[in-house]
Amino acid sequence: MTHRLQRYLSLGLATIATAFVAGCAHRTSHNDHIGLKTMGSFHIGGREVTLSGKPTKMVTMTQGGVPVKIDPNGVYQVEQMYVQYFVPAHEKGKLPLLMWHGGGLSGVTYETTPDGREGWLNYFIKQGWTVYNSDAVERGRSGWAMYPDVFTTDPVFLTKENPFERFRIGAGPGSYNKDPAKMKLLPGSQFPTEGYDNFMKQGVPRWTSTDAPIIAAYTELVDKVCPCIVLAHSQGGPFAYKVAQARPDKVKALVLVEPAGTGDAAKAAALKDIPNVSIYGDFIAQDARWPTIKANNLKFHEAIRAAGGKPEVIDLPAIGIKGNSHMVMMDKNNLEVAAVIQKWLAGQGFVR
Amino acid sequence: MTHRLQRYLSLGLATIATAFVAGCAHRTSHNDHIGLKTMGSFHIGGREVTLSGKPTKMVTMTQGGVPVKIDPNGVYQVEQMYVQYFVPAHEKGKLPLLMWHGGGLSGVTYETTPDGREGWLNYFIKQGWTVYNSDAVERGRSGWAMYPDVFTTDPVFLTKENPFERFRIGAGPGSYNKDPAKMKLLPGSQFPTEGYDNFMKQGVPRWTSTDAPIIAAYTELVDKVCPCIVLAHSQGGPFAYKVAQARPDKVKALVLVEPAGTGDAAKAAALKDIPNVSIYGDFIAQDARWPTIKANNLKFHEAIRAAGGKPEVIDLPAIGIKGNSHMVMMDKNNLEVAAVIQKWLAGQGFVR
Repeated sequence: MTHRLQRYLSLGLATIATAFVAGCAHRTSHNDHIGLKTMGSFHIGGREVTLSGKPTKMVTMTQGGVPVKIDPNGVYQVEQMYVQYFVPAHEKGKLPLLMWHGGGLSGVTYETTPDGREGWLNYFIKQGWTVYNSDAVERGRSGWAMYPDVFTTDPVFLTKENPFERFRIGAGPGSYNKDPAKMKLLPGSQFPTEGYDNFMKQGVPRWTSTDAPIIAAYTELVDKVCPCIVLAHSQGGPFAYKVAQARPDKVKALVLVEPAGTGDAAKAAALKDIPNVSIYGDFIAQDARWPTIKANNLKFHEAIRAAGGKPEVIDLPAIGIKGNSHMVMMDKNNLEVAAVIQKWLAGQGFVR
Repeated sequence: MTHRLQRYLSLGLATIATAFVAGCAHRTSHNDHIGLKTMGSFHIGGREVTLSGKPTKMVTMTQGGVPVKIDPNGVYQVEQMYVQYFVPAHEKGKLPLLMWHGGGLSGVTYETTPDGREGWLNYFIKQGWTVYNSDAVERGRSGWAMYPDVFTTDPVFLTKENPFERFRIGAGPGSYNKDPAKMKLLPGSQFPTEGYDNFMKQGVPRWTSTDAPIIAAYTELVDKVCPCIVLAHSQGGPFAYKVAQARPDKVKALVLVEPAGTGDAAKAAALKDIPNVSIYGDFIAQDARWPTIKANNLKFHEAIRAAGGKPEVIDLPAIGIKGNSHMVMMDKNNLEVAAVIQKWLAGQGFVR
């Protein structure tokens, strides 16, 4: 063959090759798809307790089954925590991202929104983060322990109007109505009210006496899978602060979405080298409780700052993102807020 | 260019093209990877109940939080069911596969095994099935309702030795020991005893009075996502039989792994056109309860057969697969048994 012919050939083949490589890349990184290296789950933490002095009983476990003797006296497994993880085929996050939900809820918080849109779990996996999504001790797939034998208080159940009024969806007491058309919403609310019934289906009973076992299990999780970044919502906020204070070498950043409490002020210095941001939605000022809850966090920030730390606050309305309820990750603009978090993480150098 | 040159070129390009296409196929169907078109979750079913006459109380939901008034009187959401789904990028199953777990457990049953190996969820997704993995009403991410107000009985908790002896892992009463080295196992048991503590962490409290709401929610799931195939374990078996009897047009096949009960004998004819197979592990004959449980199912099969149906039974030991406990999907040979199910489904024409 002549040189010209060889050049013609190589160019032609190169063009074809490029075309096919592009084809592959397009398919494997297609935005609608989720490519996983693997996914799985495990339980961690907990302890064994022994109960005694209770009567034995025959129980037919399954209708049409065969009765079995149940002796309630003995050793039980309690206070463990469920964790589901997803490892993307193409990791772009430099550290795993742990998602911790709020009170009376489970890891479902970060899955599909109550009105059927993609949640933060899919968003951050698609951004290339390895994500560990857990159900705190006492809820969801973590199971719960007998009370008052193990959990010392009764569980709390929430009526349908309670979160509607408390999570800055409705305009205060009396704002809830079964009919979305008759709900009294805060002006410009981003909560998908057509999915409110489904949101209530996500709720699980909660205890108010289980902070210690919850923190113990989260700490074991951090010891197992970190260094990592913790993204925590509401009640998960104080848990994240406290676990970071206990493991400042393992928790490399904190993203706190409307934290419902703070860490231990006496140990604020433990957080001085951990980048952390608190993110707030809309309607804080006119709420009965959120001005105090937020003020407590800002006061805690002062203690961290006094120790040399640089805690940050992002008020979504201040950057033009308005109408967010307490359930930011479910609001209609949930992915816009996720992008704010992704940008903050990238700014901290955690994205490849 | 001469004709010979054109032929040389086209052959060359064709070869390159084929090579790259093969390359793509290899990457996207890599056995260690999970390619998903999408994944998500939803809750389905349930009802609202109204409670009244109970005292109001102030509750501090989060340690360090602000007290909130909780009025327990009002409308509650109860008896819904959680469902997580995975749609593979390359579907090979002709229908969705619904996975229903057994009593006192949740969808975690089908996830990573207690000793950390891949479970049936990943296996069937990798085989190209769209899978819906649910937590039955009352368990896991489905939440549970107040008792005795809504659920009429107390929950049942299991001691650590109970499933060990009852699920054909240990050799009867007294066989459990905290130390795996001291456990008295059935000879040749395939259960991963090093993971027994983790298996107990997967357990959730169970009620014996909730069959009706559980069946109602499964029926709603079938109405939403079927036609489909239902793979059910233990207590899930009778639920699957009964839902199939209620929706014979939507449930196209039943794979029952050690069903703990049967359907309604009076409605056996409803199952005559639905391919169904019951799969049993090892050690049935020497167990205190399983000979009766299995005999009940075989008797139910007779009723289906009398109506013209062809229920099948696969005794794993009879085909050379020995040592399986009641928790077949967690045993060391769990993927070997999954392959038996995959082969049966393919034999029924459900695989593309």
